[in-house]
Amino acid sequence: MTPAPNPERRNTQARRAILDATIELIARDGYANVTIEAIASAAGVGKTTIYRWWPSKGTLALEAINDHIGDVLDFPDTGDITVDLRTQITEVVGLLNSDIGVVFRGAIAEAQSTPAIGTAILDTIIEPRTRACEVRLARAVADGQLRADVPTRVMVEMFYSPLYYRLLFGTDILRPQDVGDLLDYCLNGLRPQG
Amino acid sequence: MTPAPNPERRNTQARRAILDATIELIARDGYANVTIEAIASAAGVGKTTIYRWWPSKGTLALEAINDHIGDVLDFPDTGDITVDLRTQITEVVGLLNSDIGVVFRGAIAEAQSTPAIGTAILDTIIEPRTRACEVRLARAVADGQLRADVPTRVMVEMFYSPLYYRLLFGTDILRPQDVGDLLDYCLNGLRPQG
Repeated sequence: MTPAPNPERRNTQARRAILDATIELIARDGYANVTIEAIASAAGVGKTTIYRWWPSKGTLALEAINDHIGDVLDFPDTGDITVDLRTQITEVVGLLNSDIGVVFRGAIAEAQSTPAIGTAILDTIIEPRTRACEVRLARAVADGQLRADVPTRVMVEMFYSPLYYRLLFGTDILRPQDVGDLLDYCLNGLRPQG
Repeated sequence: MTPAPNPERRNTQARRAILDATIELIARDGYANVTIEAIASAAGVGKTTIYRWWPSKGTLALEAINDHIGDVLDFPDTGDITVDLRTQITEVVGLLNSDIGVVFRGAIAEAQSTPAIGTAILDTIIEPRTRACEVRLARAVADGQLRADVPTRVMVEMFYSPLYYRLLFGTDILRPQDVGDLLDYCLNGLRPQG
């Protein structure tokens, strides 16, 4: 007996193929050089299938990023904020140094001329993870591990902005082994110690 | 008596008109929407005049930025590194919040897909100013005002990367009145104070 067609399963497979092709092609050819047509062709779907689900290459790229990183970035809580920040920042460094970083660079670039992509980056990537980090930082403040007079949002920027600075300006890539030093400088400051 | 034609003076005037038109048009229409043709037309020169001096919109934009900021960013030295960083970062904040910031955002965006523009940003904008800042920071290290065990290059990143994070992600713009706080956090760290 032939199984009845299952449109839901077919959609799931098509979605998977599209998201994988998006990351693969952008990592290979660069964000600016990849078209929706090329992604559709690599995923074995029609262009209209993609446009039915995503209005633009930018929104597709952001969903591919979020799909890939999933829950990886949920903030750990061992009770020691230094350990947890180190774990988390090391994971982000790994992602930014991978194909995901290439896709994200392209989306950030497009956001500079397409405000809707900038809003989508904030809404779907930056803000949810900033809030998760802020919740963890607020517990560390309550535990007396961090200053109470610094907005947790600014702390997030201090921990993460050097990663993006290096990514976008193409200076030295931040390596996982640099994370401990960066944390030390942020937590203990640049004044002479003791 | 009719003055003899002066090609050097004419070139200086044309260059001035082109650089001014570059900033004006990009600030008004956005980097991605401005063409060399539009800049030539606004400056009253031929397109070939621009291409004779600059190979691309990106290199023209970077020269317009450098021409505009000129020596403004020479690093002050009052003997107090906190005062000097505050002066300097406040100036950079002012520039990034002006038309110059719009032009720079566009150039940084283009650099993500055009490596030659990324190299030009580093060579003509970032590196010369990073080195000037590092020279000043090294004097502060020698004076005992800053830790000797932190690379001055990393200090520069810590002071400036939050500005670019906010500029490129379009989160809160850093305001001049925030600079003192940011400096405090970087210099004294995020640990509870003694």
